[in-house]
Amino acid sequence: MPRQITAFSNTLVKRVRSLRDKKHRRREGLFIAEGLRILTEAREAGFLPEMLFFATGTRHALLDTLIGEIEAAGGDVIETSADILHKMSGKDNPQTVLGVYPALDTSLARLDRSAAGLWIVAQSLRDPGNLGTILRTGDATGAGGLILIDDCVDPFSVEAVRASMGALFTQRIATAPWADFLSWLRGGPGELIGTSLKAREDYQAPRYAPPAFLLVGNEAQGLPSAYEAECDRLVKIPMLGKADSLNAAVATAVIAYEIVNQWRRAA
Amino acid sequence: MPRQITAFSNTLVKRVRSLRDKKHRRREGLFIAEGLRILTEAREAGFLPEMLFFATGTRHALLDTLIGEIEAAGGDVIETSADILHKMSGKDNPQTVLGVYPALDTSLARLDRSAAGLWIVAQSLRDPGNLGTILRTGDATGAGGLILIDDCVDPFSVEAVRASMGALFTQRIATAPWADFLSWLRGGPGELIGTSLKAREDYQAPRYAPPAFLLVGNEAQGLPSAYEAECDRLVKIPMLGKADSLNAAVATAVIAYEIVNQWRRAA
Repeated sequence: MPRQITAFSNTLVKRVRSLRDKKHRRREGLFIAEGLRILTEAREAGFLPEMLFFATGTRHALLDTLIGEIEAAGGDVIETSADILHKMSGKDNPQTVLGVYPALDTSLARLDRSAAGLWIVAQSLRDPGNLGTILRTGDATGAGGLILIDDCVDPFSVEAVRASMGALFTQRIATAPWADFLSWLRGGPGELIGTSLKAREDYQAPRYAPPAFLLVGNEAQGLPSAYEAECDRLVKIPMLGKADSLNAAVATAVIAYEIVNQWRRAA
Repeated sequence: MPRQITAFSNTLVKRVRSLRDKKHRRREGLFIAEGLRILTEAREAGFLPEMLFFATGTRHALLDTLIGEIEAAGGDVIETSADILHKMSGKDNPQTVLGVYPALDTSLARLDRSAAGLWIVAQSLRDPGNLGTILRTGDATGAGGLILIDDCVDPFSVEAVRASMGALFTQRIATAPWADFLSWLRGGPGELIGTSLKAREDYQAPRYAPPAFLLVGNEAQGLPSAYEAECDRLVKIPMLGKADSLNAAVATAVIAYEIVNQWRRAA
């Protein structure tokens, strides 16, 4: 049976609320995901929250399924008010369901590159919305996951989880410094495809082969030259107007779809 | 010669700050754009601000050019502090240059469809970041502009202008209710291409012809069925994972690049 929390000052409410900060996520080894849709995606991918909060009055068959599985797994199910959920999530239009999940393993060593033909690699990505959007694109293009290089924004931030629309749970996520990534990459098959404004090759020119590692750089700076130099291929998306670049998540998607479209045609 | 403002309480500072609200933008017929890069894009596209604010100590040849042209046009150039610029823009890392522009004409009647092969049409788009990103994609794909249908977020919001990276000034922007848009569209040549999860046709299957009007729906709901029924074509992007949709700006870009890639190959 769900227990109830009705006070803003409750210790657990404060603890969950603190998970909006990276420091606390790290310390507690927990992160937040919101919304029945995302929590259901997570459940279908094999992830159950340690704690589930739902607003009094929320009724949905998917919520019943979720509650049943969480209770069977020994998790904590808590009924509370919409106001308290708002306080925990900090969102203007809070979802009526919120889950607290154990941190995912993001070690590169555990990534199995043979699990997918396409992998997305992002370097010093700063915007959580872009990160989540790239995860969502990774899912849609059948990528295996997202490898985060250097000082990227935390993929477990509330904003990134939201923007991923559940793809955080269907995509493998790894984090690594550049040197460690390169060493891992070169320990097996795979082509590193960098996107660069300086590239001469149009992104539609190459015939891409799996496993393809699509590398995108920081939103403002793009890839460092030294990183570009390590790429097996540098490609550019044609810019037909005045602008010299696309949004990072958009550029990632345009090239990722080109890669998988080639494979769809060949299949 | 630039004049100086040094007090937070200055009437002009408060007036500019108020332009972060749509209500005040409407009333004043003004909007804000920030950053030397975006202001330079605007200048190159023929748009000068009525007022330019810059932080004391900012030095750049492009700023000198901007100041010269604004003063020649009778505009107001104001030197101030980084703190006051922060107060006006509300951004954590404020740009050191801020322009206040007269509102742009967004009437559909003035749009010349023959000016470009591709036009993007967005319906009830709610996220200013998505709107700005779509403008940036429109510029990159050589689109003529963005037509905003029904109750979209304000394209002149600070967030949308920022995300557009200057494309707000290179793309034509029109706003119209659906019925007015349809009537205008059918008064000339052009194919209306809707993106829909329910579509049967893969987005790579058709041969697109200019002028192409690419219609994307609201982030959460997609297009209303009645709007889909008016489309000449409904296409879908293949979803190869668990997710059933892409971010709206990403989906727009993937299809827009398919359209212009077909035209690049034919050229």
